[in-house]
Amino acid sequence: MKTILIIGIGAGNPEHITVQAIKALNRTQVFFILDKGYANDDLLALRRDICTRYIEGHDYRLVQVSDPRRDSDSPSYRSGIEHWHEQRAALFEQLISDELKPGQTGAFLVWGDPALYDSTLRILDHVLARGGASFKYDVIPGITSVQALAAAHRIGLNRIGEPVDITTGRQIAAQQGGDIHNSVVMLDAHCTFERFVDQALHIYWGAYLGTADEILISGPLHEVSAQIREARETTRARKGWIMDTYILRRAVS
Amino acid sequence: MKTILIIGIGAGNPEHITVQAIKALNRTQVFFILDKGYANDDLLALRRDICTRYIEGHDYRLVQVSDPRRDSDSPSYRSGIEHWHEQRAALFEQLISDELKPGQTGAFLVWGDPALYDSTLRILDHVLARGGASFKYDVIPGITSVQALAAAHRIGLNRIGEPVDITTGRQIAAQQGGDIHNSVVMLDAHCTFERFVDQALHIYWGAYLGTADEILISGPLHEVSAQIREARETTRARKGWIMDTYILRRAVS
Repeated sequence: MKTILIIGIGAGNPEHITVQAIKALNRTQVFFILDKGYANDDLLALRRDICTRYIEGHDYRLVQVSDPRRDSDSPSYRSGIEHWHEQRAALFEQLISDELKPGQTGAFLVWGDPALYDSTLRILDHVLARGGASFKYDVIPGITSVQALAAAHRIGLNRIGEPVDITTGRQIAAQQGGDIHNSVVMLDAHCTFERFVDQALHIYWGAYLGTADEILISGPLHEVSAQIREARETTRARKGWIMDTYILRRAVS
Repeated sequence: MKTILIIGIGAGNPEHITVQAIKALNRTQVFFILDKGYANDDLLALRRDICTRYIEGHDYRLVQVSDPRRDSDSPSYRSGIEHWHEQRAALFEQLISDELKPGQTGAFLVWGDPALYDSTLRILDHVLARGGASFKYDVIPGITSVQALAAAHRIGLNRIGEPVDITTGRQIAAQQGGDIHNSVVMLDAHCTFERFVDQALHIYWGAYLGTADEILISGPLHEVSAQIREARETTRARKGWIMDTYILRRAVS
């Protein structure tokens, strides 16, 4: 039997890694590194750094492959994602069949936590459903950018007697005209918070959380909105990529 | 200046601790351990075990104090909680003043992540607002029971194009007759999921997550609901306490 480990490695700070994840790294013979073809050499370097920092010995190898591009011509967001997942499932099946010997352990390193806005688990379910590769798999949770954001701003995610809503830029863009009460927003490439500047909201924003380049901005949304856009654009132009997360929160009366 | 660290130590598995948290443990001279007066010696033992397992040397001490009981006679849930927070703030102020010398570091060890359904951060804000103690504080995020639950069941928290809702037993009990779509439920001491058995939901349940006593049950809610109640009652009677978390999820058509 082959084993696949899906390892959450945190949001960018190498010290966010857990003891469980370090042990999982040390059980792994083959790491599958998906190269998204973006200008994100930093992200590849961070993953390599985690391997060299925490793995004892050199009894492992990295297999770097190009991740299929998502087809943006699909009739719907969901069918586009599902088609992309099928393509990735074919790739994962091939990787597991060709690169891993029986009894060996392969791993995917996932930013944040494999359970939160990451598709690796869903794709492995597709691979098993296809039936072309046989393996068992385990999930190792990791610190998410949401947690790194809350810790950096030293705030709670929930307020007394309230739920926590974790959502995406795409989703809050779709709720046209709707009110925001208290939402954690991930994966927003379009400064969607700007649509809500006329609501009396407070924003807690962070980029490159946990890394040496971490930027934190917080304040009344209408006061700091432009500053956040400028920080996003300046650093993205300089580094070639950005990962940011924020909380929009209405004051409780 | 005194320093307070609020350290997330994970949901029960000592290997969920991060490298950042281990370093924080090793910077701390005084650990404040709040004894809730319940039959939760196991939880105290787990915290002591984390200290002895990960701290090099013996240059630290534990200060164990009784946590004030929450007054359940308050006119509202929120005012009851706030009164309790004020009582705890007075206690924390006294601990920081009496037990910590200038330049020293004290720490609170928090199950899961200090940002999620934990009051330590809010209480430290109260302490600073009272003005009787002066200190700086930092937050170290930790793996939550929500993440341990998703990893154990090897499922994602979000589905494609959907947000994540993290809520409490109290909150879903209050939404009388409302539909559940996809909710993570924490802090439910009353099997509130039973109110939803006539909805076509799937449940992913876990107790003592990450520990040797971990129990996992999943399936259609109406089929496994009684089994979960029985598992809860049996193990709680035997161990004297239970910590459990679950996801209620409607199938996407």
